[in-house]
Amino acid sequence: MEHRLGLIGCGTVGQGLLQILKDKKDLLRDKFGFEARVVGITDKLKGTLVIPEGIDIAAVLDVLGQGKGLADYPKATAAQAEPLDKTGEPATSYVKKALRTGKHVVTSNKGPAALHYREINDLARQNGLQFRIEGAVMSGTPVFHLAESGLAGNTIREVKGILNGTTNFILTKMETEGMDYGPALALAQKLGYAEADPTADVEGFDALAKVVILSNVLLGGALKTSDVPCKGISAITKADVKAAKAQGFRYKLIGHAKNENGVVTATVSPQKLPLSDPLAGVMGAQNALSLETDLMGKITIQGAGAGKTETGFAILSDILAVHRSR
Amino acid sequence: MEHRLGLIGCGTVGQGLLQILKDKKDLLRDKFGFEARVVGITDKLKGTLVIPEGIDIAAVLDVLGQGKGLADYPKATAAQAEPLDKTGEPATSYVKKALRTGKHVVTSNKGPAALHYREINDLARQNGLQFRIEGAVMSGTPVFHLAESGLAGNTIREVKGILNGTTNFILTKMETEGMDYGPALALAQKLGYAEADPTADVEGFDALAKVVILSNVLLGGALKTSDVPCKGISAITKADVKAAKAQGFRYKLIGHAKNENGVVTATVSPQKLPLSDPLAGVMGAQNALSLETDLMGKITIQGAGAGKTETGFAILSDILAVHRSR
Repeated sequence: MEHRLGLIGCGTVGQGLLQILKDKKDLLRDKFGFEARVVGITDKLKGTLVIPEGIDIAAVLDVLGQGKGLADYPKATAAQAEPLDKTGEPATSYVKKALRTGKHVVTSNKGPAALHYREINDLARQNGLQFRIEGAVMSGTPVFHLAESGLAGNTIREVKGILNGTTNFILTKMETEGMDYGPALALAQKLGYAEADPTADVEGFDALAKVVILSNVLLGGALKTSDVPCKGISAITKADVKAAKAQGFRYKLIGHAKNENGVVTATVSPQKLPLSDPLAGVMGAQNALSLETDLMGKITIQGAGAGKTETGFAILSDILAVHRSR
Repeated sequence: MEHRLGLIGCGTVGQGLLQILKDKKDLLRDKFGFEARVVGITDKLKGTLVIPEGIDIAAVLDVLGQGKGLADYPKATAAQAEPLDKTGEPATSYVKKALRTGKHVVTSNKGPAALHYREINDLARQNGLQFRIEGAVMSGTPVFHLAESGLAGNTIREVKGILNGTTNFILTKMETEGMDYGPALALAQKLGYAEADPTADVEGFDALAKVVILSNVLLGGALKTSDVPCKGISAITKADVKAAKAQGFRYKLIGHAKNENGVVTATVSPQKLPLSDPLAGVMGAQNALSLETDLMGKITIQGAGAGKTETGFAILSDILAVHRSR
């Protein structure tokens, strides 16, 4: 079956997806009967390209790889810059418009899911469509697929995770190399794990958005970001990390959510985990999530939390889930 | 949709499944549109019960829970002991006969999958049916679901796992409590983790069957158990464990399989893992598997490796997968 795809945004994630669709074209067709026709791409920096007959993926990757805009695509029939911005709202409007006009939506953008999950998911259901967000938490490391496929039938009572790779990298360096917070952050910035303004990572706001999404998707909550106490790692010192280690503990920035008798609550905070906790061994920029279930007890999954290919794959995995359900 | 189920064997796993089907009847119907009618149960110790209109699950659990046979089921219309045995072969014949007569097969029995996976899977495909074995490896901790759903589209190059909880429990006790092998084994036997004859666990044969299954299902291999070098933990001493720990390593019984340029090889052996390996932190009777993939890098899943509810759930998870695919 051929699926017609439109991409809103074509930066790292979009190009990661296109690269996989190109490299895995034969495997996806032969193994899953899946074929993709990319009919449109729009990006605030690169412009807009709409070709109902299908965009040549190799050609468009070539153009974008040279740093050019979509107007430079060889057979461009329409190219027009359409500004987007990065707040939750324009993305949410695009998502809703797509669902109202008969299109499944897959996104790794945390905004719509963190701020409006229930409303968007209801809209999708009313239209017989899917709103899928695997890439919004832990990139393509499958969290939502795990819950809806391998763990289907379990009630998930609690989730606890390392949801931000940047802070986990900083805490790892503080412990394993005895660095203080400032130099560890500077190293993360130098290596591209942290942005020039690291606030969203180090103050826990990135993990906060993810824990709200997990609460609302996996635990049946209806939390807003303002409902969740959030503390980052910027006040943790080398001495704190060393003292914890001496006691057999390890600092991790933990996103935690639980459903107790139908009441869902969540927090983001640095916690001293005993080394026996499956999350304690998660080092560097890796992410991991433990799910407490009624039938299977604790299940923990660990993997990449970011990356071009990994997040591009997250999008593909959701498109394949739509494909399987048809 | 109602599914008609027949159980061959109704010991721990079968009763675990029946208990879940009873407890989760409403959830399964309301959430997934899934209803189960158990039409037959046969067990070498408990006899045979066939009721096309459906067996009352609460009533049969009550009878079995009292240690009685199926002939004591209140409305038994047919009860006849049909002896089975525990080697691979009779199970394989039952599996094939079911597939030849239009029935999907779900099993947690390692024998058929370890010895005849390709043949059975081909038979299932030819008949448009599924042969599913989630419970054969790591009980209901989802390994095969993970590969076919959340990681679909990845090529899996290598798997490495702690596939036997008994040996992991023994090694954990040897390290954390300084026990020698003999007393640690005796403790495992006392707690019900190890059998009176612990050979299958401690010499690695249980892990061997699982690594053959993983090789053939996930890596496209065609290995037989005799192709796989297998070494257990019975020769490991307290001194070995202590020396490894002093060097920053931890002994684990590792099942390992890889596909290099189409050639699949596997081993089972005790390995000294660096503490940075996600498998090194897996303690006690837990199981875990790391999958090396082309798009997502390393993904590790950790959870229960055995248990009545956990393996009963494994069967349910495969039945739900059949349900979703219809």
